[in-house]
Amino acid sequence: MIIPRTLKGFRDFLPDLMLPRERLIETAASVFRSYGFCPIDTPALEYLEILQDKGSDETDKQLYHFTDHGGRQVGLRFDLTIPLARYTAQHFADLTFPFRRYHFGKVWRGENTQAGRYREFMQCDFDTIGTKSLTSDIEIALVINDLLDSLGFARFKIRINNRKVLSGLLDKYGIADKTTPILRALDKLSKVGTAAVMKEMTEVAAITSSQAEAVLALTGLATTPANKHCSAGTLAETLLALQKLLSGNPLGEEGVSQLDELFRCAESAGVPKERLVLDVSIARGLDYYTGTIYETFLDDLPSIGSVCSGGRYDNLAGLFTKQELPGVGSSLGLDRLISAMEELGMIEKVSTPVQIFLPFFAANRLADYLRFAEKLRRSGVGVEFYPEAKKLGQQLKYADKRGFRWAVIIGEDEWMKGCCQIKDLQTGESIECAMDECAERLPN
Amino acid sequence: MIIPRTLKGFRDFLPDLMLPRERLIETAASVFRSYGFCPIDTPALEYLEILQDKGSDETDKQLYHFTDHGGRQVGLRFDLTIPLARYTAQHFADLTFPFRRYHFGKVWRGENTQAGRYREFMQCDFDTIGTKSLTSDIEIALVINDLLDSLGFARFKIRINNRKVLSGLLDKYGIADKTTPILRALDKLSKVGTAAVMKEMTEVAAITSSQAEAVLALTGLATTPANKHCSAGTLAETLLALQKLLSGNPLGEEGVSQLDELFRCAESAGVPKERLVLDVSIARGLDYYTGTIYETFLDDLPSIGSVCSGGRYDNLAGLFTKQELPGVGSSLGLDRLISAMEELGMIEKVSTPVQIFLPFFAANRLADYLRFAEKLRRSGVGVEFYPEAKKLGQQLKYADKRGFRWAVIIGEDEWMKGCCQIKDLQTGESIECAMDECAERLPN
Repeated sequence: MIIPRTLKGFRDFLPDLMLPRERLIETAASVFRSYGFCPIDTPALEYLEILQDKGSDETDKQLYHFTDHGGRQVGLRFDLTIPLARYTAQHFADLTFPFRRYHFGKVWRGENTQAGRYREFMQCDFDTIGTKSLTSDIEIALVINDLLDSLGFARFKIRINNRKVLSGLLDKYGIADKTTPILRALDKLSKVGTAAVMKEMTEVAAITSSQAEAVLALTGLATTPANKHCSAGTLAETLLALQKLLSGNPLGEEGVSQLDELFRCAESAGVPKERLVLDVSIARGLDYYTGTIYETFLDDLPSIGSVCSGGRYDNLAGLFTKQELPGVGSSLGLDRLISAMEELGMIEKVSTPVQIFLPFFAANRLADYLRFAEKLRRSGVGVEFYPEAKKLGQQLKYADKRGFRWAVIIGEDEWMKGCCQIKDLQTGESIECAMDECAERLPN
Repeated sequence: MIIPRTLKGFRDFLPDLMLPRERLIETAASVFRSYGFCPIDTPALEYLEILQDKGSDETDKQLYHFTDHGGRQVGLRFDLTIPLARYTAQHFADLTFPFRRYHFGKVWRGENTQAGRYREFMQCDFDTIGTKSLTSDIEIALVINDLLDSLGFARFKIRINNRKVLSGLLDKYGIADKTTPILRALDKLSKVGTAAVMKEMTEVAAITSSQAEAVLALTGLATTPANKHCSAGTLAETLLALQKLLSGNPLGEEGVSQLDELFRCAESAGVPKERLVLDVSIARGLDYYTGTIYETFLDDLPSIGSVCSGGRYDNLAGLFTKQELPGVGSSLGLDRLISAMEELGMIEKVSTPVQIFLPFFAANRLADYLRFAEKLRRSGVGVEFYPEAKKLGQQLKYADKRGFRWAVIIGEDEWMKGCCQIKDLQTGESIECAMDECAERLPN
């Protein structure tokens, strides 16, 4: 006998977790499609040279790789971005740009599993590739708003920044060559505080204290601050402060005017004002992002981290093609969202996809039960029929364990009369109705 | 520069192929759910000992396996049946039986790729586990019928057999120990013909010619024969012939009465008579299946092979648990179905998930366009907005390339008047309507 077990860091999905996950994926996909984003898919396995040396040393170390039957060095993808870059370069001639795509796919990383992290997880990325237009940046913000809205979240903040703002400031002070150490220092702001970041910027990045102060003044601006290092202001005030800090620098001014337009258009398109935050402190992706940056936090569960993050980049696939492919996109944190929905009580813990249970207890009526169940399904009412003619009590116990809300009970008496009992399994109450009316009388 | 390429036997999905695939998966999932089947998922990687020595020597040879970071021997799953067996044994205490599940998942086989076969492909299995009741067998037939119906197929045949019929006959003649060589010979019937099979049965399986004749008489029975080795008859005639051949043998008689009940109930539940075929010649799974067997062929494309096959088995997870788990299930051939739909012209070749295209050409109206597009989406009308304010002709060319059906055209004049032009991109005709009425005037 072989012990049935899964690998460390890998997990099975039981129905009660898989049902909300599938619902979430279908909802997200329908939002993507409503904007014209198309689904794509790529293989789990790629040539190793496609995957290696693309992320950090850490992702290289975490890469699952081996030699296949044909002696090829292959690896399991660790994200959906490298495969997208390879895909876009490879199919350049067959794609139409601007190219909007979404991709749900599993990725694998041989990570340390201590902190509840998994070695196999689902990613969900969406991007518009092949245009520099700010319109696509704005649309990404609209999609994020629609996604969370459709999933039932009302209270969240989309925190938006533009990398041109900080780049402009560093450019203005002639310290653009120090971008990487400065960003590295800023990244620690919420953990170590202003003084320590100040120290690191002057010592490690070797900029003057007045330069460091300007950087901190800039990154301390937010319309709704996420931490104590930011000062609150209205959108107009914050934009004005940015304009002052960056005046005279074309790159910085472009960043400010892009932020201005993004907020104006998103609001016009119906994104509630309180959901959109201009937050200059967010600084994702050390070298990758070059324009708009997005992070999204749930008001009721900010500690879970950003549930949808991304930004604009200058060139997606430079490693694979000479075609310059600018784009903008974001990644939806499926597993985080499901955890959040669980924690916020937004998910009913059931292990059935349908609400109606049909017990089988007049044994010689099998054909009639099956016909009745099919009729309900054809009226759009999903129903589970118990396959064995056991005692009613036993079957209702099973229904209770599975989390059904309603049972439609038909015994020999009911068959004779052409009626059925609709039983509310939570209250225990029943109503009787004609079989033909059952579909209408049932909720949903 | 790295050459962007995929591994041999692996493929990318471009939007025009991925859109129908996603639609097919969502449709199939909703059919499964309407019967109470639940989605599950299992990891792509399993301990090698879970996967090895479970199928044939061939599947062992095709297994992708390697040593992971922790020195574990691991492999990529080659089907969804072994993972289901492992899953059911492992989570036995947390599952409620009868357990209906469906599973869409990728599997990997290092196969010879000559015959257009892929090394990575999607499987779709559905099963009811933990009951011996024939009700579940009948339900699988109903699900197959519903699946193909929902996918838009009207003309197909679900070919049904019951392994107890042949087992009963071999039992009656005292040659049950010859089951494997007899089945192996029968498997070649449509290729080599009656005489050759006769020869193999008498020579290799070493049964007498009168025994071999009885076997061939049995397997020649079908209500709508798939090949010249079967004789046609009505359902009642075929059942009667079977009863005669098997009279006195309890196992065989049980098989016949199960077939009788399955056909009676499926018909009562609304499966059109012409879609259900009793075909004693089908004999899937040499040792695995023990009761009902299913194969499904498209009337308009039988050569593509069975698009949904399966059957009843006695014990799913004997390798992993002492719990006896009988079940019945089937596997939907997604890729075959998509090929068939393409070949039969059931798929529109488009690379957009929405039908409505909104060009952007009054450059200073961005916020207005975005608000208008969001309003359409909130009325349930998906719309793609072009991100750059280019010339209208250029944008319509793009729309044509992508396969959009309609464009909603709003220039400065229309913005002033609060109206829009709905343009049929196939006929070139336009109608004008108020912006507020646009959603209602658009099809779908």
